[in-house]
Amino acid sequence: MQYGFLGPETTFTHQALLQALAAMPEDAADDAPVLQPFSSVATATTSLVEGEIDALMAPIENSVEGGVSGTLDILAATKRITIVAEQVVPVTFVLAARPGTSLADVRAVASHTHAQAQVQGWIRAHLPDAAVEPASSTAAAARELALADVEDATAASRAAICSPLAAEHYGLEVLAEGIEDNRGAQTRFVLITRNHRIPPRTGADKTTLVVHLAHNRAGALLEALELFNANGVNLSRIESRPIGDALGRYSFSIDVEGHLEDRRVANALRALHRVCPVILFLGSYPRADGIRPDVSSVTADTAYDEAHAWVDALSEMLTPGDDPQI
Amino acid sequence: MQYGFLGPETTFTHQALLQALAAMPEDAADDAPVLQPFSSVATATTSLVEGEIDALMAPIENSVEGGVSGTLDILAATKRITIVAEQVVPVTFVLAARPGTSLADVRAVASHTHAQAQVQGWIRAHLPDAAVEPASSTAAAARELALADVEDATAASRAAICSPLAAEHYGLEVLAEGIEDNRGAQTRFVLITRNHRIPPRTGADKTTLVVHLAHNRAGALLEALELFNANGVNLSRIESRPIGDALGRYSFSIDVEGHLEDRRVANALRALHRVCPVILFLGSYPRADGIRPDVSSVTADTAYDEAHAWVDALSEMLTPGDDPQI
Amino acid sequence: MQYGFLGPETTFTHQALLQALAAMPEDAADDAPVLQPFSSVATATTSLVEGEIDALMAPIENSVEGGVSGTLDILAATKRITIVAEQVVPVTFVLAARPGTSLADVRAVASHTHAQAQVQGWIRAHLPDAAVEPASSTAAAARELALADVEDATAASRAAICSPLAAEHYGLEVLAEGIEDNRGAQTRFVLITRNHRIPPRTGADKTTLVVHLAHNRAGALLEALELFNANGVNLSRIESRPIGDALGRYSFSIDVEGHLEDRRVANALRALHRVCPVILFLGSYPRADGIRPDVSSVTADTAYDEAHAWVDALSEMLTPGDDPQI
Amino acid sequence: MQYGFLGPETTFTHQALLQALAAMPEDAADDAPVLQPFSSVATATTSLVEGEIDALMAPIENSVEGGVSGTLDILAATKRITIVAEQVVPVTFVLAARPGTSLADVRAVASHTHAQAQVQGWIRAHLPDAAVEPASSTAAAARELALADVEDATAASRAAICSPLAAEHYGLEVLAEGIEDNRGAQTRFVLITRNHRIPPRTGADKTTLVVHLAHNRAGALLEALELFNANGVNLSRIESRPIGDALGRYSFSIDVEGHLEDRRVANALRALHRVCPVILFLGSYPRADGIRPDVSSVTADTAYDEAHAWVDALSEMLTPGDDPQI
Repeated sequence: MQYGFLGPETTFTHQALLQALAAMPEDAADDAPVLQPFSSVATATTSLVEGEIDALMAPIENSVEGGVSGTLDILAATKRITIVAEQVVPVTFVLAARPGTSLADVRAVASHTHAQAQVQGWIRAHLPDAAVEPASSTAAAARELALADVEDATAASRAAICSPLAAEHYGLEVLAEGIEDNRGAQTRFVLITRNHRIPPRTGADKTTLVVHLAHNRAGALLEALELFNANGVNLSRIESRPIGDALGRYSFSIDVEGHLEDRRVANALRALHRVCPVILFLGSYPRADGIRPDVSSVTADTAYDEAHAWVDALSEMLTPGDDPQI
Repeated sequence: MQYGFLGPETTFTHQALLQALAAMPEDAADDAPVLQPFSSVATATTSLVEGEIDALMAPIENSVEGGVSGTLDILAATKRITIVAEQVVPVTFVLAARPGTSLADVRAVASHTHAQAQVQGWIRAHLPDAAVEPASSTAAAARELALADVEDATAASRAAICSPLAAEHYGLEVLAEGIEDNRGAQTRFVLITRNHRIPPRTGADKTTLVVHLAHNRAGALLEALELFNANGVNLSRIESRPIGDALGRYSFSIDVEGHLEDRRVANALRALHRVCPVILFLGSYPRADGIRPDVSSVTADTAYDEAHAWVDALSEMLTPGDDPQI
Repeated sequence: MQYGFLGPETTFTHQALLQALAAMPEDAADDAPVLQPFSSVATATTSLVEGEIDALMAPIENSVEGGVSGTLDILAATKRITIVAEQVVPVTFVLAARPGTSLADVRAVASHTHAQAQVQGWIRAHLPDAAVEPASSTAAAARELALADVEDATAASRAAICSPLAAEHYGLEVLAEGIEDNRGAQTRFVLITRNHRIPPRTGADKTTLVVHLAHNRAGALLEALELFNANGVNLSRIESRPIGDALGRYSFSIDVEGHLEDRRVANALRALHRVCPVILFLGSYPRADGIRPDVSSVTADTAYDEAHAWVDALSEMLTPGDDPQI
Repeated sequence: MQYGFLGPETTFTHQALLQALAAMPEDAADDAPVLQPFSSVATATTSLVEGEIDALMAPIENSVEGGVSGTLDILAATKRITIVAEQVVPVTFVLAARPGTSLADVRAVASHTHAQAQVQGWIRAHLPDAAVEPASSTAAAARELALADVEDATAASRAAICSPLAAEHYGLEVLAEGIEDNRGAQTRFVLITRNHRIPPRTGADKTTLVVHLAHNRAGALLEALELFNANGVNLSRIESRPIGDALGRYSFSIDVEGHLEDRRVANALRALHRVCPVILFLGSYPRADGIRPDVSSVTADTAYDEAHAWVDALSEMLTPGDDPQI
């Protein structure tokens, strides 16, 4: 199996892919998977569609920046690719050094400018006298330190600010973790495959949709939300994206709790299909947090099945019987 | 064919039944139908269920008094009987006399007290000097006048206040019609058969339901109405009836525009079946007024069919394909 | 103070009035109140409006029969009379006899036919050999027994089926209580005064309304219910009543949880006033059951007051300030 | 008056500001306004708040890219600044040259890479043989051409791709207009002032809001939309923005049709204030398109005023009157 991801190596997307592989059942992950970094989601998607890779990990939503437009737009525009899994990765940084270096030894810290900005409070507090040096990426900072010549006397007094994965990948020791000033930021990633494949429901699933609303009808968004609500389907995310043809025209990227196999989800999708000029199904897949939604008895599968059976029984009465027609 | 109706003969119910027979296609009404008056809807229903009669005409709603409780309750309580047609009859009275009598000849007017009360304005204006005499029913007033001995000299100066049908039935001449003080009152009647039979849809149909609401959930009526609304199903009547077990507990007798064969109606019924502890289907049948509802493109049959086809196509992707499972 | 009630004496309405008087604060009930039976709610209302009585107790809703049309229609049609209290009375019967009579002594039981029908199961089980004798009312049965000549030897072997109040009123002894076959039936009564008076809120109140819906707008009932819902106002009763001008045209008699002084109720009333062609306020008054509704923080008085203050503050910005106008 | 705009000169924002000034009543625009370009909306906002400029024009929404995050976030985060006007500017390009140059003369075309990409279809069709040369901005391309030395023989065979305003500003002649490949793109700009000032309503107004939804309540967005709908307030734009504290947490930037002085808008704002943990009012101002919304009689100002008067009259009944208290 060939897996693509938004590179370079040791990015948070890489981390998300490793998490996804670790979570797979053993037999599915039996063969040694091949991981391949791509410079953009667009090029990776082309490789996926052309069969050069089998799946692709891409960021879809960040807790600070919101939806990742590039990924959302590619998902909406590419036929027959679907999301089959999600992973959430904390946006967190570590201070890493060569084995044997202690925090007190550190005289210089290297990282990418962007990452430096996110940890400056910690640096000021814990390494006020250290020199802060630029690197082309957090991965590069880690790699350079790892590859430093054994003769290089300064190597034992240098550290890198990088992702936990980069530290591990390059054999560095973590001197401090969670050193970002704003704790709790997360990015959500999705694993995408071709051929419109939908994994079976687990009971703790999510379904991703794109809908356009009828622009000539007032209250179209209200109407769409009522159709989810009428089927007991909660939204875990709703984001607007411009359609592009006029000011004020938006499509909505939506995650709902539940799986296409859940009757309540399928019924809500049918209802939306009626009222929305465009509706795209981007996948049903297990939730990263494994939380099972609280499903009311009136929107459980059995409630839908019994309702169907009732109307089917009524409909049989439509056939003229022995009674003379009145 | 044996038809029951709430008697005696020449009542408005009798009139409704004659209207219904006249409206039937010729081959359905080929044989001479037999019409049988009953003293109550309850006894007529027993005859219907036991197969002694084939259909039954009963009043269901009056524009002044509202729902006819007796009929509504029997419909709700009796299994496998359904409404197959409706008729609307104006509640109107005529002044009728023996052929040859003119309005100027009339010295005495007979009717039932109830009918007299409804025409007293007209009598005061047009027959201020006439004696007003009681009769046991409007039909009895008409019949007595019709059967008056040919030797009875007063017969030519007497008139009866009765239904148009009674005048016709007893061979009287109508001297004035529409003489009721409050014009425009109407009663709606339904034709009921056994064996849960549903006539085919005509495009201008009505469906009658009884629903109980979940009493432990706030906004249950709102929720039920939203489910009709979400399917573009209009209500032409909604009436409350006490369930009987506690104060404030009501069921609702509902007429909606449309037929069980309309996808939007069937879908609304399924939705209600999920959320209502009790839902009874009492029939789909042609509207008396023949008005076709204005159906939006998003609730037309094709919209439901296309939505089903779309979700069915998605669901086929659930079967594992050639792709290795990720 | 003069109180009217739907008579005769010892009816359940009489019982409701006695309950209401017992529940009044001592100083309000200081003077000996005068209680006066009326033969109909209509005549009692005329007396109320003309100032001959100060208040009137009338039945409004029965758990088996539903709304009491006569009372509902008079409340809707009479200006400036309002409901100021409610009482709930169980519809229950007792077997009563002269003091000294035991159940084993009873050979004959008298009551009104209607009451007999409701206790026949109990009579069959406990007095299978007793003669059942008709009376003109349950009160009459009790009174006749109470007034029986002391010489009448059969008096000691006779019993009456009547209301608990009738037994007490006529000095009879209760041999068995709660003997009705269907337990739990209740009737709700309202105390009505003139001059549009509204008692202060207690926190456990009810408000009674009549609304007509705009007949030319689809979903009018749904819209009205949404306006209650948007203000967190629960309905404890909703009943339809024909408006009278056409088939399918209904007004709704509604009880909501809360008092006119509750911001959420006042706001819902304002919203309904906008969309309903007719809305009648029939009173805010303490609930008989004393249950306080569960009010969310978003519909508490403070939430409305803060929202008002916010918009008022914004509106002050409408006055041109020091800034030059752009 | 000092006006800031997102520079450099001749940007579409500059164009929007000129449009706004041209639209002002004469007396308001009497003095010669001073226009000052800023390198970012953030620095311009600081100048506005500190009183160095009086108003600021900034882009808020583009028909292709959607909301302009920078402006939306600054509006949400800055106290007491409000939108007082909007302008819509078509995103369109012209081919401009020195006076006397004709299309047939053009041998070289200069522009910014970004603009070149948007007009390449037109260039291929109309100037297939022209050399395409880069410039640092579309304004720079125009300026360089305008300032070319009079001795420069090539100047008469060169053209610039720039905004219509740049051509006019630098005294160039427009050889072709509307040459962008995708026609119809527009950007919407808002004029912002300090001191929370609200211009009077014109009848064709817009109100801009930011709301956060209660994240622990299902259907919070649905509830918010219902509150607009219940007051007949249409949304002309709704966009999500991450709140930043967790995945799936969004605020909404909303434009509604109407003005704070419209009772329906004020009432909807009060209702939202109750249910939303955060609601920001960013201004009521005239719509650029001048379209007056279709206001139903049930949401007209008079409907709100009459509803208020009715409840106020009812509330007067709360004061104990002459009637003894029951």
